[in-house]
Amino acid sequence: MILTVTLNTALDLTYHVPELRAHRSHRVGDVQERPGGKGLNVARVLAALGHEVTVTGFTGGVTGRVVQDLLTRTPGVVDALVPVGGTTRRTVAVVDMRSGDTTRLDEPGPVIASAEWSAFQEAYEGLLAGADAVALCGSLPPGVPVGAYAALVRTARAAGVPVLLDTSGEPLRRGVAARPDIVKPNAGELAELTGSHEPSRATLDARRRGAQSVVASLGAQGLVAATPEGRWRATPPHRVHGNPTGAGDSVVAGLLSGLLERLPWPERLSRAAALSAATVASPVAGEFDHPTYEALMGLISVNNEVLAS
Amino acid sequence: MILTVTLNTALDLTYHVPELRAHRSHRVGDVQERPGGKGLNVARVLAALGHEVTVTGFTGGVTGRVVQDLLTRTPGVVDALVPVGGTTRRTVAVVDMRSGDTTRLDEPGPVIASAEWSAFQEAYEGLLAGADAVALCGSLPPGVPVGAYAALVRTARAAGVPVLLDTSGEPLRRGVAARPDIVKPNAGELAELTGSHEPSRATLDARRRGAQSVVASLGAQGLVAATPEGRWRATPPHRVHGNPTGAGDSVVAGLLSGLLERLPWPERLSRAAALSAATVASPVAGEFDHPTYEALMGLISVNNEVLAS
Repeated sequence: MILTVTLNTALDLTYHVPELRAHRSHRVGDVQERPGGKGLNVARVLAALGHEVTVTGFTGGVTGRVVQDLLTRTPGVVDALVPVGGTTRRTVAVVDMRSGDTTRLDEPGPVIASAEWSAFQEAYEGLLAGADAVALCGSLPPGVPVGAYAALVRTARAAGVPVLLDTSGEPLRRGVAARPDIVKPNAGELAELTGSHEPSRATLDARRRGAQSVVASLGAQGLVAATPEGRWRATPPHRVHGNPTGAGDSVVAGLLSGLLERLPWPERLSRAAALSAATVASPVAGEFDHPTYEALMGLISVNNEVLAS
Repeated sequence: MILTVTLNTALDLTYHVPELRAHRSHRVGDVQERPGGKGLNVARVLAALGHEVTVTGFTGGVTGRVVQDLLTRTPGVVDALVPVGGTTRRTVAVVDMRSGDTTRLDEPGPVIASAEWSAFQEAYEGLLAGADAVALCGSLPPGVPVGAYAALVRTARAAGVPVLLDTSGEPLRRGVAARPDIVKPNAGELAELTGSHEPSRATLDARRRGAQSVVASLGAQGLVAATPEGRWRATPPHRVHGNPTGAGDSVVAGLLSGLLERLPWPERLSRAAALSAATVASPVAGEFDHPTYEALMGLISVNNEVLAS
């Protein structure tokens, strides 16, 4: 079983409007509701790849109940969310059907009490006993200590469970120092962590800060990885057009899936890059297009990365 | 008791963001949830003025339960919403804190089955037995016939209950022909109904189409009214700055309140115009600022309206 952790779960709403115009009224044509938060997206992709997945994090209030109700309809995903007194946040993605661009509005999430954070840590330790790998994903809700991911990384390492971290800012900085097996920053998060805007150098720097392997997602430019076995760049054959929401989560799913199947790093990266591009190509945000994934799998070029001088 | 009908009830969400920028991501600082839909806004203002109010319309799903839960915390408002199988819609108002402007996203609402529409009409007829006046407010959800308001106006008239209609488009056109006691269009709705962009002429035209009295709300320009007793224009002493959301609903509340207290038309218009301006002045959308209301009450100028030649 793969465990994914989403401390700031969400009910994701997607609204389609003919054209978004600030300071006007819009009739929304079509409303989609999905369980949201990065770890839930990762879980959905892993389940679609045939893995058994358990999701944990927090759930509360009526929006939390809707999230859990929607999870019961997602085959292959087991709900192990921990109840809290607050109400799970909503996120709203407004898709402008004229341009295809998306405007996001993210609620802050409920304030987590310290007793709730303790209850979560206990549940997490119990779930690790049955886990082959764990992914820690996304932002922290108010009330959770900034060192939360560092603590969860240490618990996973003590339990001997490989741990991947995908977050940003100070929680990422502290989490990296706790020596996770993999971190998966995007270009902006990597630059913020290392101070370098040159991804190839920055992945090496992030390894020096504690991560065993670093895989940076660079959007249409694919992935760059620094690992104990070597360094690679994985590039799709052409730019894929579409909605990039969830593309980074598909990279995480691809890396974990490859880790469990003990694939060599170049194959893991190839899978992750193909899944990411197939997610951009999907008409539904956060899901991947299977035919595109199959077609791209053999077309990702994975090259040894040489540091630009 | 005053009865207000909101066929397209909503859970109104208000998001405050530092600056709304299309095609960007925004962290929402502050989330407010309120029972929404025009008739519920009218009811809240009437209750604040000391009237007994009953609200009806449709409620369904988890958002419907949240609306009903919030209504129980609104003193003076009795919930007589009729359950449906679909889910009550949400509306999202995004307030740009830099400009103060609001961007709205309105979900379409659940499809009402014909058996649900019949059940509502039966409940409505029962509620009319205890009503001193009824307000029919807002848009129609999918599935409700376009002649719905015309039917509800006729039922109210048959029961001898004064009826006010506040809607737009074809439902307004058909509703007016059923001879309601009052219609309260805004400038755009009145122009669409009559084809005239001159509100004074257009109110007379709307009377000829069947409405006994017509009160048009013209934003900062106040109100213009054509009634069997005479024609007036009610103008606030100065432009009030703020959020116009719910200002028209406060006009409806002021008119109904004045009707029940058998106030002469000029006093009804004065009250409605003061309530409307005090709603714009309130920091909370759809609520009115009591001190502003009290201060403006004596300062609204109500003059006989003479048709421009």
